[in-house]
Amino acid sequence: MDAAQETRNKEAFRHAVVNTLERRLFFIPSFKIYGGVAGLYDYGPPGCAVKSNVLAFWRQHFVLEENMLEVDCPSVTPEVVLKASGHVDKFTDLMVKDLKTGRCYRADHLVKDYCKDKIENDHNLSAELAAELRHVLAVLDDLSEEELGAKIKSYGITAPDTKNALSDPYPFNLMFKTSIGPSGLSPGFMRPETAQGIFVNFKDLYYYNGNKLPFAAAQIGQAFRNEISPRQGLLRVREFTLAEIEHFVDPDDKSHPKFSEISNLEFLMLTREDQVSERPARRIPIGVAVLEGIVNNETLGYFMARVYLFLTHIGIDKDRLRFRQHQANEMAHYAADCWDAEIECTHDWIECVGIADRSAYDLRAHTDHSGTPLVAHEKYPEPREVEKLVIAPVKKELGLAFKGSQKMVVEALEAMGEKEAMEMKATLEAKGEADFKVCTLDKNVTIKSNMVSISKEIKKEHQRVFTPSVIEPSFGIGRIIYCLYEHTFYTRPARDGGEEQLNVFRFPSLIAPIKCTVLPLVQNQEFEEVARRIARSLTAVGISYKIDITGTSIGRRYARTDELGVPFAITVDSTTSVTVRERDSKLQIRVNVDEVASVVKDVTDGVSTWADVQWKYPTHSS
Amino acid sequence: MDAAQETRNKEAFRHAVVNTLERRLFFIPSFKIYGGVAGLYDYGPPGCAVKSNVLAFWRQHFVLEENMLEVDCPSVTPEVVLKASGHVDKFTDLMVKDLKTGRCYRADHLVKDYCKDKIENDHNLSAELAAELRHVLAVLDDLSEEELGAKIKSYGITAPDTKNALSDPYPFNLMFKTSIGPSGLSPGFMRPETAQGIFVNFKDLYYYNGNKLPFAAAQIGQAFRNEISPRQGLLRVREFTLAEIEHFVDPDDKSHPKFSEISNLEFLMLTREDQVSERPARRIPIGVAVLEGIVNNETLGYFMARVYLFLTHIGIDKDRLRFRQHQANEMAHYAADCWDAEIECTHDWIECVGIADRSAYDLRAHTDHSGTPLVAHEKYPEPREVEKLVIAPVKKELGLAFKGSQKMVVEALEAMGEKEAMEMKATLEAKGEADFKVCTLDKNVTIKSNMVSISKEIKKEHQRVFTPSVIEPSFGIGRIIYCLYEHTFYTRPARDGGEEQLNVFRFPSLIAPIKCTVLPLVQNQEFEEVARRIARSLTAVGISYKIDITGTSIGRRYARTDELGVPFAITVDSTTSVTVRERDSKLQIRVNVDEVASVVKDVTDGVSTWADVQWKYPTHSS
Repeated sequence: MDAAQETRNKEAFRHAVVNTLERRLFFIPSFKIYGGVAGLYDYGPPGCAVKSNVLAFWRQHFVLEENMLEVDCPSVTPEVVLKASGHVDKFTDLMVKDLKTGRCYRADHLVKDYCKDKIENDHNLSAELAAELRHVLAVLDDLSEEELGAKIKSYGITAPDTKNALSDPYPFNLMFKTSIGPSGLSPGFMRPETAQGIFVNFKDLYYYNGNKLPFAAAQIGQAFRNEISPRQGLLRVREFTLAEIEHFVDPDDKSHPKFSEISNLEFLMLTREDQVSERPARRIPIGVAVLEGIVNNETLGYFMARVYLFLTHIGIDKDRLRFRQHQANEMAHYAADCWDAEIECTHDWIECVGIADRSAYDLRAHTDHSGTPLVAHEKYPEPREVEKLVIAPVKKELGLAFKGSQKMVVEALEAMGEKEAMEMKATLEAKGEADFKVCTLDKNVTIKSNMVSISKEIKKEHQRVFTPSVIEPSFGIGRIIYCLYEHTFYTRPARDGGEEQLNVFRFPSLIAPIKCTVLPLVQNQEFEEVARRIARSLTAVGISYKIDITGTSIGRRYARTDELGVPFAITVDSTTSVTVRERDSKLQIRVNVDEVASVVKDVTDGVSTWADVQWKYPTHSS
Repeated sequence: MDAAQETRNKEAFRHAVVNTLERRLFFIPSFKIYGGVAGLYDYGPPGCAVKSNVLAFWRQHFVLEENMLEVDCPSVTPEVVLKASGHVDKFTDLMVKDLKTGRCYRADHLVKDYCKDKIENDHNLSAELAAELRHVLAVLDDLSEEELGAKIKSYGITAPDTKNALSDPYPFNLMFKTSIGPSGLSPGFMRPETAQGIFVNFKDLYYYNGNKLPFAAAQIGQAFRNEISPRQGLLRVREFTLAEIEHFVDPDDKSHPKFSEISNLEFLMLTREDQVSERPARRIPIGVAVLEGIVNNETLGYFMARVYLFLTHIGIDKDRLRFRQHQANEMAHYAADCWDAEIECTHDWIECVGIADRSAYDLRAHTDHSGTPLVAHEKYPEPREVEKLVIAPVKKELGLAFKGSQKMVVEALEAMGEKEAMEMKATLEAKGEADFKVCTLDKNVTIKSNMVSISKEIKKEHQRVFTPSVIEPSFGIGRIIYCLYEHTFYTRPARDGGEEQLNVFRFPSLIAPIKCTVLPLVQNQEFEEVARRIARSLTAVGISYKIDITGTSIGRRYARTDELGVPFAITVDSTTSVTVRERDSKLQIRVNVDEVASVVKDVTDGVSTWADVQWKYPTHSS
């Protein structure tokens, strides 16, 4: 199959999935009756149920099993917090404007589209230019404002809608801005991630955890990104649900107590080196990856394994899931290591979970900006003796010498590092005075030996004080769900042998929006009463269901329920026993009316398998 | 007890509750290390778990049991939607500004504070003025901009912080405003309620429900309210979680199929008349209330009962819960009836759930603004013959007569009501011409009989088309949770007989943030291993726990866990059997290590009661 055909197949498949999703209200373009807003989508009833199931399992798998501290912080965030985190200054995309209409575009998108179009459609393209365009595509994310602008100029790229000239690229901050309170003096933003809410609470959470490391905090919530021009449908949206974990750990000990439980697990990894050498992803046991230093530390590796288990458990195909390591240039300067869980869908490999060792960056930033030390303490078994520098300015003498500038001189003296202080001590002992630059005065002053005493003292320390490292797995819930739709969707011919293809989502029961449907075989009051009795017993055991008493043919009703990914259908064809049909095999068993709710509950909860109940109950052939 | 003492007691109680909540991180003032932001709070670990349990039960009690369609829409909302709903124009509070500092206050708060202070503290107050101030307090919510301004002037109210003069009151819109996309041309707001997301999707949801009424849609999500100056701590915040239900029903038939299941339920109601006559709330069976027309209809009554069951099940005291009917003047003009579930706490009776019959208002507003008809259809068993007015303008003649104004005349003719049209018909038949006012031209024209034909025709109608009524129960989750804290909090003396009082939250197991603690009686490796084994089996059955292996005394550790409202404590005092202690009775039973997880699971899930297991297992006396 050639590349063009493959692209067409992918697009046809995506069209079938998205069409089914939209028709069955898994999602709805938000505010549709008003023409919609790009990048905003609603979860309709089945989509909302899938999301709620994914989040419930996330809580079970991470928060409950790992004893994490879950918090829930507001989306509205004052500027000072996002200034500290760097988002006010750096959370930007480069934008160009149509110089006539004012319409905005992402600069990199236009360059990308230009290069792709040329490569695919310009048959007169020189080999040299083709190679250049391919190179541009490869380094697109690294291009500066000026470099992108130069490309747009040299390729003569114009506004796609009007062919008008474009402005130079300039950064646009992607946060939704607002104002807190009526004064207009307190700028705020809708948070671009949930993590900051955890970082600013570190001190309280550490205390709550008995002042012990390691521990993890978690948060599920909305995050916002005011995209310049959202594309890629459900994968690039302006408001989305994030589930984030911040695992705080001693930077000197990133081992994990439960690592041995998962060390034999192997999954696809695409290492930094393999990417450079253009080698494919390899299945590596995580224990080996950590041992060989491919993955930086046990805790990072532990979370990669837990993410792998989470994603495959909800129905992501393990062969279309890989962990790609960040290149040094795409990783934040402070990060120790970073791996993205990428899931392959018809849009390419999509980053769905980022797992980063962010070192001490975030806690340090908030310590610096807030003045509250976000640190951990480790008590030594017995006090340790350490040599400490002691700088004692003699305020009286300094006051006489410097008058109004005294305070600045004192502060500058106290702020000296060890090397500088010991040099001054030596100079003072040798010459009786020393030249000293006071930055806040922007001049040199002369310090005499009676103005300061500098010494080294032996002090007893009872504890080590340090800023913990943060290991952050961050889940884009909407993207995971979209990929899950693609991985579980398939079609099969209708029973009547015609051309019609029926759609099925093979969701695991855990994730299915509804666990079963209840269908009276024919419209009749007796069967309907049985159906309602079964419905009540399903509610009693907490199994969600949909009852369909329309006169539509049973085959058509099965097709409807398959299209919602409902794993089981109960068909009422008598008043004493009913059949249970499994979605993918289409096989049926016969069960007593009074037993059926608990049978369905056991299979959906995973207490029994479909094979178990097939063995226990008679097969029904329709 | 006099009123002042009662106030002091309430404040002391509130202080004890809030202090415990904050110390144990049920909540945390958001962005605390940066000085916080008024009206924004985080849920810390136990608070977040309580919230997540309340929401899970809400989903079970409403969405699952009533087969509702749950949706999940974005918070960012374009202006057009909130223009249609009326929020852009009317979601305001009246504000005054300190004329020197620019600080803003809610006008009604200042007047309220002034009146209360005068009444309580001014011992020279004349009986006449006291009566006036009491009247102002009673009608405060109804005062207009001008009336409030006049009160502020005549009482000489100044800015509380500076005593500076105040501006006249003016409306401040309470929505957080933002801009969607980079152009600055698409204003948007953070939604003030989740309901609009459901209304704009009515057409799709109705289709999803098989084009059948009644059905209900539900949404849980964040809502935002940019308060002028938030007070009352956790009860008046700028971002909060709402859970809203929109039940769509035929306006001609508001009966409810499950009404008989709850019609005997009785609870406190404070009717419109009882409020006017200053009579106390009465316990009335909801069946009687609907029958006597106290509650407008069965569906409204059904939801009141379901709300009562929900609130009391999570732990709200039924004697401090009442349903207060809105007075005609506090209800929106379109509403048919409205009841607030109010919960008494130390701040007074607090509106926690609003249950309103909003008639067809919302769907009509969005129909008008979007041009998409949000209507339902009822097929008649057989077609009905109806007389229909037919107005047929003769465009050729009108064109000749009115040239460029033809379109306006045609539209005006077509827009005539039945009465006006039949009068014109009579005039045309009698005189051959008629005077006709065209509003869009702002003048009268002469219509001749050859310019329009007006007739009544018998047409067959196959269906009735109508706008459904909406019955809306809307839950303020944060307020409910705060009241729950107050209703479940109590203190008891420490065991050692000293003065110390220990704090307890008597949360039902369903709601408790953690279901049990695991405590080795003394620090020893064997007991710790047993504790970890029990912890693993608790995780396996899905029971959240906290393990406490600190060397603190067992009594102190029980006190800590009581303060978090943990219902059960497992104490490891041997390697074969352990004790289970119930929080409120402090009684203990002895259970085998291998059985303990399932015993705790059964009592927390409600499969057995504490009395059941007390009977089954030997009592342990420590």
